[in-house]
Amino acid sequence: MMASISPSPGFVASGKPRADGLTAALAERAAAWRHEALPEDARELVRQCLLDWVAVCVAGAHEPLTRMLAEECREQGGHPQATVVGQGFATSCRQAALVNGAAAHALDFDDVNMSFSGHPSVVLVPALLALAEARGASGAEFIAAFVAGYETMCRIGAAVSPGHYAAGFHATATIGTFGSAAACSHLLGLGAADTAVALGIAATEASGLKSMFGTMCKPLHAGRAAADGLMAAQLATRGFTSRSDAIEAIQGFAATHGPDLDPDAALRDPPGGLYLRQNLFKYHAACYGTHAAIEAARHLMDHHGLKVTDVERVAVHVSAVSDGVCNISEPRDGLEAKFSLRHAVAMALCGIDTAALENFSDERAADPELALVRERVRVQLHAECSEITQAEVVVKTRDGATLRHRYDAGVPETDLAAQKARLVRKFRAMAAPAISSEVCEQLLEIVERLDELPDLSPMAGLLSGVPLDATRH
Amino acid sequence: MMASISPSPGFVASGKPRADGLTAALAERAAAWRHEALPEDARELVRQCLLDWVAVCVAGAHEPLTRMLAEECREQGGHPQATVVGQGFATSCRQAALVNGAAAHALDFDDVNMSFSGHPSVVLVPALLALAEARGASGAEFIAAFVAGYETMCRIGAAVSPGHYAAGFHATATIGTFGSAAACSHLLGLGAADTAVALGIAATEASGLKSMFGTMCKPLHAGRAAADGLMAAQLATRGFTSRSDAIEAIQGFAATHGPDLDPDAALRDPPGGLYLRQNLFKYHAACYGTHAAIEAARHLMDHHGLKVTDVERVAVHVSAVSDGVCNISEPRDGLEAKFSLRHAVAMALCGIDTAALENFSDERAADPELALVRERVRVQLHAECSEITQAEVVVKTRDGATLRHRYDAGVPETDLAAQKARLVRKFRAMAAPAISSEVCEQLLEIVERLDELPDLSPMAGLLSGVPLDATRH
Repeated sequence: MMASISPSPGFVASGKPRADGLTAALAERAAAWRHEALPEDARELVRQCLLDWVAVCVAGAHEPLTRMLAEECREQGGHPQATVVGQGFATSCRQAALVNGAAAHALDFDDVNMSFSGHPSVVLVPALLALAEARGASGAEFIAAFVAGYETMCRIGAAVSPGHYAAGFHATATIGTFGSAAACSHLLGLGAADTAVALGIAATEASGLKSMFGTMCKPLHAGRAAADGLMAAQLATRGFTSRSDAIEAIQGFAATHGPDLDPDAALRDPPGGLYLRQNLFKYHAACYGTHAAIEAARHLMDHHGLKVTDVERVAVHVSAVSDGVCNISEPRDGLEAKFSLRHAVAMALCGIDTAALENFSDERAADPELALVRERVRVQLHAECSEITQAEVVVKTRDGATLRHRYDAGVPETDLAAQKARLVRKFRAMAAPAISSEVCEQLLEIVERLDELPDLSPMAGLLSGVPLDATRH
Repeated sequence: MMASISPSPGFVASGKPRADGLTAALAERAAAWRHEALPEDARELVRQCLLDWVAVCVAGAHEPLTRMLAEECREQGGHPQATVVGQGFATSCRQAALVNGAAAHALDFDDVNMSFSGHPSVVLVPALLALAEARGASGAEFIAAFVAGYETMCRIGAAVSPGHYAAGFHATATIGTFGSAAACSHLLGLGAADTAVALGIAATEASGLKSMFGTMCKPLHAGRAAADGLMAAQLATRGFTSRSDAIEAIQGFAATHGPDLDPDAALRDPPGGLYLRQNLFKYHAACYGTHAAIEAARHLMDHHGLKVTDVERVAVHVSAVSDGVCNISEPRDGLEAKFSLRHAVAMALCGIDTAALENFSDERAADPELALVRERVRVQLHAECSEITQAEVVVKTRDGATLRHRYDAGVPETDLAAQKARLVRKFRAMAAPAISSEVCEQLLEIVERLDELPDLSPMAGLLSGVPLDATRH
């Protein structure tokens, strides 16, 4: 475990710190990140976040909601400053951030950080990519700004957790707006005072309701957070004013958006020194609450060389919290299948690829053979466990053996080379249907060289793509 | 008092109604407004709201915050669909709504409705003006859409009052987003179901903190509400999805933004049948909490033919609520003077025009002669009165007489002709420094003929103006 690389280590609390100065302290930390001071694993993680973001964005670029937003932005118009992924046109950086953020969240297959119960890269990358393209920023500047946004977002999330998310706010949207503002402020070279102003503007822009899950508004939230944070930073550059204590102020962001504000949690360093090191990637096209059970089931099948016919019955032990999240017993369609522990485990037992979006289809949900396997799977809820990322799967085989495996999908991969290989497979699988394999390889190569890129225009050019509906415009 | 003209009177509650269906019911009402069914006083009120909005927007168009937003929008670019007031250029309708909304709120001199503790026209007009210009909508369509937005906004505000505003949300921003969404949905011809979707998108977009008062974010809120509501309606037109019960849903807008949700208050008709009839215009360039005292003091001076030298001392009786709002005893600058009952009354006693922005200056705040008059004014707070719009002023004259007058600035003017004359004076005073008197008269004439205008391009052309900073772009 590496030592903390927090840029301004003067905020260690003695006893319970007062919230005074919290926003200013976070702004000071955010402004202090430097590419050259980042350890190599942090840079590699940023490249992996970018790679994963490109995969999910390219795959989500032709979802109906993305097309609607792209058409809306075409109608509004804008200087061609930044590429709209997969749509074959460029627009203002604010609009590009909006569409690309929504596109990347359309499939809900993007990375996660549990510190704020949300998706970090889906907000940070589209804002930074648009701004970097518009301003001609370098890959190194992108990386440092990404880390500034990532760490700020997680620290604010930690301060208002768990009450903020529990109260009904979609943290990807709300906390994401701060993340985008901090990241864009960094890319624009703002100092601590102006970054605090940008965070203040973000505080009064932040919105997004969890009750919108299941509608197109969920992905819209990610795009809005990216675009709004970008605007906050741009306005701060122009001398716009806001409170510089917007998070902790009386009737500020924290007080109006949930019961919790723990400045201590925001100011202390996370285990491992960086929240970025706790980034979790999604490898299964289902709810994150099914991931541990899928992994455990797959491990048992592979490790013991089992075929599905060898399995007599399966018990899936999970947190009772899963019951309200991903425990649909008999899924009726592909969407419900994504929220069914039994169905996901049955797929794993049958060797069906749970990473492939198309396998969570209405047909598979209704498949009688898969339904028979599902019958053999029982979910057992444990009230004493609060971690939805953990599962133990126990397989009883036809020849009488009892095999068990425990998996915690909340533990980040420490072998970054292995993680990269897995992300490259995911990238190829998701991007392939939308772009040529040649473009895939070029994108992989560009991400690999991110730190040395003088500007991001080569990536933007590859992401633009040929619009599937080019003839319509 | 006219009978209710609510378009769908089927929602009168028997006993305490359930919140189920509230958003849908409000959407149905919003979609049902028709220009030809509006009584003439309602149409006249819309014209007066528009006239007042033009006055405050033209006057606010060259404030620093407006210029920053206009420059930001120039940099982002956009199809020239809608005029940016006073800046000599057009941009996308979403960006025009943003800038014009902020411009019109920059001086905090725009109209008010107490039902939601906020400013209605500042949000509705910029959204509708931009959309009407972009789409070539008629004056009659503008008027009906304005009423749809106005009534929806006030009904939602009534449902979540007083807790929503008290909890720290700037209702002009949050409730305003719904108002703009309803108004724009109407102008786009959406039916009830699509209007409910637009309200759902508005529910998850709505943001804005009261703790930002005193910063440029306060006017920004009005612009954002206008632009976001416009986008919500445009997305609904494209088939975007959201919840259609977004206000009343579990962890919906109401539950996440304050303690109150009274569907009864939203569904019952206001006294007079229309919230529009309770619209209050501002005639003094100071906090609304000072208006009743100014009016009462002026009345006594005029009615009794007093000169300031005749006045020995003055008692101003107001609600104790005023103490935290507008009771700065010794204002140190022009901004503080706006929040000083003593100073505002002293100005009224001296016959200084409290409608003129330039009279709330740092120089006047420091004027020793005015300070001597201020010394004769005493503010007396009354805990039993909760209405900040009410005041009683008692003047003791040098010749021993005691004169008293009570004024309630919360009672709308019933003489619409008198109100119009006063608004025209305000319009001329505010617009004159920015535009020629010829343009002033043309604008007055256009607003007068609003109902018959086939489209709003003549108004847009007059509002565009010559940018003061034209040489810089």
